[in-house]
Amino acid sequence: MTSIITLTTDFGAGSPYVAAMKGVMLGINPAVRLVDLSHEVGPQDVNYGAVLLAETTTWFPAGTIHVAVVDPGVGTARRLLYARIGDQHYLAPDNGLLSLLAKRLRPARIVELTNNEYWLPAVSNTFHGRDIFAPVAGQLSLGLEPERLGPIVADLNILDWPEPQLGDHRIDGAVRWIDRFGNLITNIPSSMLDASGPPEALRITCLGKQIRGTIVSYGVRHAGELTTLVGSSGFLEIAVVNGSAAKLLNACAGAPVAVEW
Amino acid sequence: MTSIITLTTDFGAGSPYVAAMKGVMLGINPAVRLVDLSHEVGPQDVNYGAVLLAETTTWFPAGTIHVAVVDPGVGTARRLLYARIGDQHYLAPDNGLLSLLAKRLRPARIVELTNNEYWLPAVSNTFHGRDIFAPVAGQLSLGLEPERLGPIVADLNILDWPEPQLGDHRIDGAVRWIDRFGNLITNIPSSMLDASGPPEALRITCLGKQIRGTIVSYGVRHAGELTTLVGSSGFLEIAVVNGSAAKLLNACAGAPVAVEW
Amino acid sequence: MTSIITLTTDFGAGSPYVAAMKGVMLGINPAVRLVDLSHEVGPQDVNYGAVLLAETTTWFPAGTIHVAVVDPGVGTARRLLYARIGDQHYLAPDNGLLSLLAKRLRPARIVELTNNEYWLPAVSNTFHGRDIFAPVAGQLSLGLEPERLGPIVADLNILDWPEPQLGDHRIDGAVRWIDRFGNLITNIPSSMLDASGPPEALRITCLGKQIRGTIVSYGVRHAGELTTLVGSSGFLEIAVVNGSAAKLLNACAGAPVAVEW
Repeated sequence: MTSIITLTTDFGAGSPYVAAMKGVMLGINPAVRLVDLSHEVGPQDVNYGAVLLAETTTWFPAGTIHVAVVDPGVGTARRLLYARIGDQHYLAPDNGLLSLLAKRLRPARIVELTNNEYWLPAVSNTFHGRDIFAPVAGQLSLGLEPERLGPIVADLNILDWPEPQLGDHRIDGAVRWIDRFGNLITNIPSSMLDASGPPEALRITCLGKQIRGTIVSYGVRHAGELTTLVGSSGFLEIAVVNGSAAKLLNACAGAPVAVEW
Repeated sequence: MTSIITLTTDFGAGSPYVAAMKGVMLGINPAVRLVDLSHEVGPQDVNYGAVLLAETTTWFPAGTIHVAVVDPGVGTARRLLYARIGDQHYLAPDNGLLSLLAKRLRPARIVELTNNEYWLPAVSNTFHGRDIFAPVAGQLSLGLEPERLGPIVADLNILDWPEPQLGDHRIDGAVRWIDRFGNLITNIPSSMLDASGPPEALRITCLGKQIRGTIVSYGVRHAGELTTLVGSSGFLEIAVVNGSAAKLLNACAGAPVAVEW
Repeated sequence: MTSIITLTTDFGAGSPYVAAMKGVMLGINPAVRLVDLSHEVGPQDVNYGAVLLAETTTWFPAGTIHVAVVDPGVGTARRLLYARIGDQHYLAPDNGLLSLLAKRLRPARIVELTNNEYWLPAVSNTFHGRDIFAPVAGQLSLGLEPERLGPIVADLNILDWPEPQLGDHRIDGAVRWIDRFGNLITNIPSSMLDASGPPEALRITCLGKQIRGTIVSYGVRHAGELTTLVGSSGFLEIAVVNGSAAKLLNACAGAPVAVEW
């Protein structure tokens, strides 16, 4: 079975930077199988990159190598890391990109990339994706032991992920990310809602709009209606049936969401 | 030879939803080869999705599995289907996505997906792409017989595809889809034009603009000129040489097109 | 080892035209491995396509087949070419797409595609990507000798790539392309700067803004600051740290850049 490498960047699909990384990885391991995970992370949007990695990479087969390059600090002293989390391998700058994953499941092994024996011979100051991450991923896909990449380190940089607060008959949470359909995915897990009483008794407030009750699926509401439901990753979502809640509420990531009962 | 699965969605390239589907499919069959067909179907634009599948999937090798998720009815009672059409396999909601294909060539076998033995253990109400279609596609790529997925059914949902009408020295058709270059691809096949007299004698009218005659290729007209020709899929197209007919005519899918002679 | 084909087009990711090309190639060689290089070349932007191919394809393993379809002259008398440049294979219209590559390294072999034995049986006038390039690439990936495709020709069409001019204590160059982050990549190579004195003594002028000195990496400047540096492909770049120089300067490809000392 040949190895799989996934790529996540803020370069934009079709960027020459993505193409160069693919070339370097295939140049080292022509048999490796590349999967575009996403190149549509907003420029330097480390938070969204972290959400994307946490929501998607755990579905991949054991041993998949995930390369994530959202790197506003390229050329500064920030560390570059290899991490094993669960049965997946990750390569990313130590800027919080792996921190939502690491918060959910403690990394089994973290290595700082310092051994330039596995890098391109000339390393630029602005494109470590091509010059360091891509050749290291190619080598890992050929079976290189991660411990050869540099010293084992104890920790990685954990971003401050705001947690929903349970108060007196209320939960105060926030929008964590917004999908293409304009659905607002919050940081409030379904388990917190289950403890709050019957779904139809909840009042959800976001940016001045109040919604009564949560539903089971879009199908029970009419097109255009503002509603809330537990989404596919297990968190409360605010949605407009066949429309965009983000547009209707003019919402962006971080917007506060209150649940009362 | 390892199997091929293509993906067509309205999730947008780089969506976490696409990434999760890829992970689930590779998790079940790590050797399967994934091909992004398109994730740029407009949100809930079933009609365009149907055109895209009809224009492109028949080129793939026999036995390719095409997964199409444009699913405004997710969570409602709409059926999920497997269909064999020609030598290709399809998985899609029964909302018309497969109906342009099925109109051109009668499906040899249609199966309703009801056997949850091949689904993810927990099925969400909003993401059947990940929870049902992806694992079923993974299983099919490993050789599962489609008949194991559920009962054979007789029909699938056929959208009302408007047909061009042949009148007295005229054809009344419509724009079916618009490509990135702004070319308007109509539903008028070249065979209908052939019966209408010499190409140079035709008058084509769309949204108030009249074009005289059809040409063989862009190369015989000057940049910026509005023209018509038989396009690469065998239908009449309205085009601006090195420009956008969609912009010039402010056209969208469904706009009426008349041919007179 | 199965062959690799990369695709570069101006069709837009998710275009039915890209999907049809993939289908045709896999239909001929179901084992071939397809890599999306870029479908985000601007419509008919041959210059940018040429830059993209030159910056990225040389990283791929020897023997990779690169198919490039940016073809405003489709249907005219322009030639279609196979070229071997270095250890890579290229298929492209002879409109300059390969000319930045060919300027850097003389092609070892150029063949004009005339032998329609390897094309689709019916060739449209508007989509040679699907009807000629895709089947020819599929055949090459199966081991067909390029010389079977048509006659060997001596030259390909070289665009007029403006070269930076070295004057009296100054270099006059231009912006060659702009990346997603808004960085302006010029045509001035680092070797020319090295001969011009210490980096901190240079004055760079573009569209009325003057920048003093070049830096080593973004990390030594503050967010929002306009700066210049030698980028990852070895050319002078104008950048805004964690921002967009293209927006700040309202720049596009071709904008003049002067370096004085």
